[in-house]
Amino acid sequence: MKDYNRLLDDILNTVNSVKHPGSVASYIPELAKIDPDKFGISLQFVNGETYNAGDYNERFSIQSISKVFTLSMAIQSIGDKVWDRVDVEPSGDPFNSLVQLEHEEGIPRNPFINSGAIVICDILLSELDNPKEEYLKFIHELNGSDKIKYNELIYKSEKSKGYRNIAMANFIKSFKNLDNDPEDVLDFYFYTCSIDMSCVELAWCFQLFAQHGKQAADGTLFLDPNQIKRINAIMLTCGFYDESGEFAFRVGLPGKSGVGGGIVAVHPGEYSIAVWSPKLNEKGNSAKGMHALELFTTHIEKSIF
Amino acid sequence: MKDYNRLLDDILNTVNSVKHPGSVASYIPELAKIDPDKFGISLQFVNGETYNAGDYNERFSIQSISKVFTLSMAIQSIGDKVWDRVDVEPSGDPFNSLVQLEHEEGIPRNPFINSGAIVICDILLSELDNPKEEYLKFIHELNGSDKIKYNELIYKSEKSKGYRNIAMANFIKSFKNLDNDPEDVLDFYFYTCSIDMSCVELAWCFQLFAQHGKQAADGTLFLDPNQIKRINAIMLTCGFYDESGEFAFRVGLPGKSGVGGGIVAVHPGEYSIAVWSPKLNEKGNSAKGMHALELFTTHIEKSIF
Amino acid sequence: MKDYNRLLDDILNTVNSVKHPGSVASYIPELAKIDPDKFGISLQFVNGETYNAGDYNERFSIQSISKVFTLSMAIQSIGDKVWDRVDVEPSGDPFNSLVQLEHEEGIPRNPFINSGAIVICDILLSELDNPKEEYLKFIHELNGSDKIKYNELIYKSEKSKGYRNIAMANFIKSFKNLDNDPEDVLDFYFYTCSIDMSCVELAWCFQLFAQHGKQAADGTLFLDPNQIKRINAIMLTCGFYDESGEFAFRVGLPGKSGVGGGIVAVHPGEYSIAVWSPKLNEKGNSAKGMHALELFTTHIEKSIF
Amino acid sequence: MKDYNRLLDDILNTVNSVKHPGSVASYIPELAKIDPDKFGISLQFVNGETYNAGDYNERFSIQSISKVFTLSMAIQSIGDKVWDRVDVEPSGDPFNSLVQLEHEEGIPRNPFINSGAIVICDILLSELDNPKEEYLKFIHELNGSDKIKYNELIYKSEKSKGYRNIAMANFIKSFKNLDNDPEDVLDFYFYTCSIDMSCVELAWCFQLFAQHGKQAADGTLFLDPNQIKRINAIMLTCGFYDESGEFAFRVGLPGKSGVGGGIVAVHPGEYSIAVWSPKLNEKGNSAKGMHALELFTTHIEKSIF
Repeated sequence: MKDYNRLLDDILNTVNSVKHPGSVASYIPELAKIDPDKFGISLQFVNGETYNAGDYNERFSIQSISKVFTLSMAIQSIGDKVWDRVDVEPSGDPFNSLVQLEHEEGIPRNPFINSGAIVICDILLSELDNPKEEYLKFIHELNGSDKIKYNELIYKSEKSKGYRNIAMANFIKSFKNLDNDPEDVLDFYFYTCSIDMSCVELAWCFQLFAQHGKQAADGTLFLDPNQIKRINAIMLTCGFYDESGEFAFRVGLPGKSGVGGGIVAVHPGEYSIAVWSPKLNEKGNSAKGMHALELFTTHIEKSIF
Repeated sequence: MKDYNRLLDDILNTVNSVKHPGSVASYIPELAKIDPDKFGISLQFVNGETYNAGDYNERFSIQSISKVFTLSMAIQSIGDKVWDRVDVEPSGDPFNSLVQLEHEEGIPRNPFINSGAIVICDILLSELDNPKEEYLKFIHELNGSDKIKYNELIYKSEKSKGYRNIAMANFIKSFKNLDNDPEDVLDFYFYTCSIDMSCVELAWCFQLFAQHGKQAADGTLFLDPNQIKRINAIMLTCGFYDESGEFAFRVGLPGKSGVGGGIVAVHPGEYSIAVWSPKLNEKGNSAKGMHALELFTTHIEKSIF
Repeated sequence: MKDYNRLLDDILNTVNSVKHPGSVASYIPELAKIDPDKFGISLQFVNGETYNAGDYNERFSIQSISKVFTLSMAIQSIGDKVWDRVDVEPSGDPFNSLVQLEHEEGIPRNPFINSGAIVICDILLSELDNPKEEYLKFIHELNGSDKIKYNELIYKSEKSKGYRNIAMANFIKSFKNLDNDPEDVLDFYFYTCSIDMSCVELAWCFQLFAQHGKQAADGTLFLDPNQIKRINAIMLTCGFYDESGEFAFRVGLPGKSGVGGGIVAVHPGEYSIAVWSPKLNEKGNSAKGMHALELFTTHIEKSIF
Repeated sequence: MKDYNRLLDDILNTVNSVKHPGSVASYIPELAKIDPDKFGISLQFVNGETYNAGDYNERFSIQSISKVFTLSMAIQSIGDKVWDRVDVEPSGDPFNSLVQLEHEEGIPRNPFINSGAIVICDILLSELDNPKEEYLKFIHELNGSDKIKYNELIYKSEKSKGYRNIAMANFIKSFKNLDNDPEDVLDFYFYTCSIDMSCVELAWCFQLFAQHGKQAADGTLFLDPNQIKRINAIMLTCGFYDESGEFAFRVGLPGKSGVGGGIVAVHPGEYSIAVWSPKLNEKGNSAKGMHALELFTTHIEKSIF
């Protein structure tokens, strides 16, 4: 046990001693205000052992990590019919590209780029009675507490400047792959991204993907193990935009990043791990976070590969 | 003079005897209701001689032909500064493609594709006090009468289904190449497209481009001849979406088409000619209209080339 | 043990009872002659247990599976310097696309598309004294026997019709990412693809990737475990052209396919498995092979995810 | 008459007094040796009046201007069947792009980009008994003398470094849009580009396009006026790679440029004009040449528009 505490401290010291290029996400004004030097990490084994370091208890905006939650909810709702509306291939383009969407006539490449997540939100909007409430409830159940909230400032900030996402939703609608009004879909989409969570909370929620569908809080089966396997596969191939191959290559774990600087990854059957540091590299992933996870899996010499 | 009357009648008979594939524009519900077999033509020489045939007096929705009017107004307003915001190259992509816009970071390829015209409308919105009124006034002055009006049904129809254009405007805004709110720009853009004109009225207005900038109604200079030359050049290279090369090749005149089925073309120093027939080919240009103009220039053995 | 024999038989019966659309690779005349209904499978656990079914002993052209061997050799030769010349991202485009190569100025997206493998062959050509001999020797050592040979008919057939690959090699050369003459590089590249192997032989060779770098024949360490982890990661994200995401999603194993109809996959630390059936789906991967592997991992309820 | 002499002198002085950015074509080693500051111009009216300035008598490599000659020969040979193999649309991509070729499955966008000219050369190779001799003879007849020759150094230089063109020819072959061996087609293609001509000779040859198909030397009809009209249209829409719209906009004449620094343009029914200066702008067109032609048409206030 002591070893892991020391390992996380070593990692913290190493990533803080290196000067990482990049900058905090600036397209969402509210996000641009965060201290770029923050760094937190939380490691949670499936047996419950937990190790933390740095700013692991500080909440940050989960942003695109929400795409894993909404996909899970959509699969809970309509099962494999999700895949009639979204593909599962890596995109090879930046997260907000409209090029492939045009070539593939409104079918997003996968559920973890913005266009895909917007379609997933459209599904939830059609299926759920109170989408926002049920989304929060889903996270609360995963987390075993109801303290996690959405951040209204972030939500409004994104909504007022989200031209690229408005473009995307209307583009998809023009191909008839949205059932609801684009404005309503985006309102829900921005809401899902605006949740604040800490590394500890994120790693805890992602036990779901480390424990083959079992909820960490009380061990009940939350999602079919076969569906968890597929979500993990998509996290591995598509979780880091056009840096997904690089992450698989260097870290070797399924995971998901957000422009708030969070990254969460899992070794199925073993552990979940969440890191946070706001400064992003040029692909839009946390610079220190990527570095920390590479140090971690290299040190423990264990990955899914 | 008799010859031209007969020539237009012959052309009318020929295009009506051929079965043209294609269909009326369906993405704007109001346009889809038009009788696809209509055909009108009006030929007007710079000396005032005029020849007509078919449904030449019936008004139709000018749609993208408006892009020539708005460009002319923008050049009147801010001159060559227009070209800081829009390029002058043919696009090689469909009229509503977002691909090139992404590669060129929000600078539309030319002012005659939708994205380009949206930027032009943004310029007018910033420069004019009452954009809609001044736009109508511009057309009234060109036409020497104030009978031409916008069609509210078309305007509302486009507005309610214009997802692709909403996507485009927000996409351009995300690259910071719109100064105004995308919604306001689109409202004006849809308005400019919703004008109803007949072949006779269109050919008369386009005398401006046949007479090197002089207004047909009273002969006053309306636009600098050097600017008219440039607008004519853009009509030749970009007036027919990704069928522009084909039109130059087969017809050999600068011109502009709209999805309402209208096409207007000019031989600078000689004549203007407008045709209308609602059925569109797969590139979005009037099928009978393209055919009629090819017959015309082949017969008179005279083009700018 | 009996269970696995029965499982493979069941899989064989199931895939043979379904009519798979698709056809045998036709662009290489010699490949087009193979009986499309053939099917073989070989499953080999890291402890040596082996189970086979169908045409598991019949040799076929490994084609793109060779890309895993040449990449392994290049990493043995120059280590991480390989990654200066080739990227590790999924391509999102067909295996022989030149589009991304143009956008990325001659740097292939990954070593498992044709362009990437051509660059890898260029590296080997520069590094090795007798590339063809050493390539065969590499496979012989992995296989613990020297019976595997290259197929001259296939080699000549590819060479005479390989216009797309000639295009690709010269295109890369124009970006200065080939050191040798394109013709020499292609000669070696076609040679590496022209090896004939059976399912049993392939699964045996790929124990290297199941056993973290140890050679199955005598247990010596052949490649660094950390490098094996990375090659496995690239197989997972890029091993099946633009169906890689689908394979990860449905099967959940690192693997590699070839247009000869072979697919080989590994569960690191557990087993390797090779299947063969010549009829290809529209993405260029064995139709029955994909089906068989999906049945297998679904049945044993065990994947890396 | 004196005015035109003075005008050309003024233009020469103006373009020489400005510092144009850019550099001599470097991908063909032999071309890189030329003095970048050279400038020549020749203006020839259809009535025979001729005005020259600068290095108008110095021969240079015509390069892509040859594409107009080969297209004319192909139309002489097989007429409109040419258009089954090549399109007539502007490309919106650099002259040596392979992207559009992939999207359009081997049909080049137009005959004035490299891929299109390679297909045209393939046609000539199939149609002519002695393609190289007949090509030279065609130019000799147009020029009324047999002094124009091909430049062996340039030819060999291109052939040894023409990787991009080899890529293109093999790519087209892979789509089955070449009948002959790619190597043979390229040999002829490089030959056609390797002709040396002066401004005077080029403007003289291009009288064909100013005189609606009549040969300047003896007035005989060389090509159908209707075909000349079409070739002129393609020169206007496609003659300057992805700067074609800009040239039409600024200069307003059909024309063709080459990476040797030559540009030749025509005003049908009026005159032909050739300029030469080796330094190229970033689009691959002569920097001084573009400038000179813009000055010329702006001054004489006369273009086809």
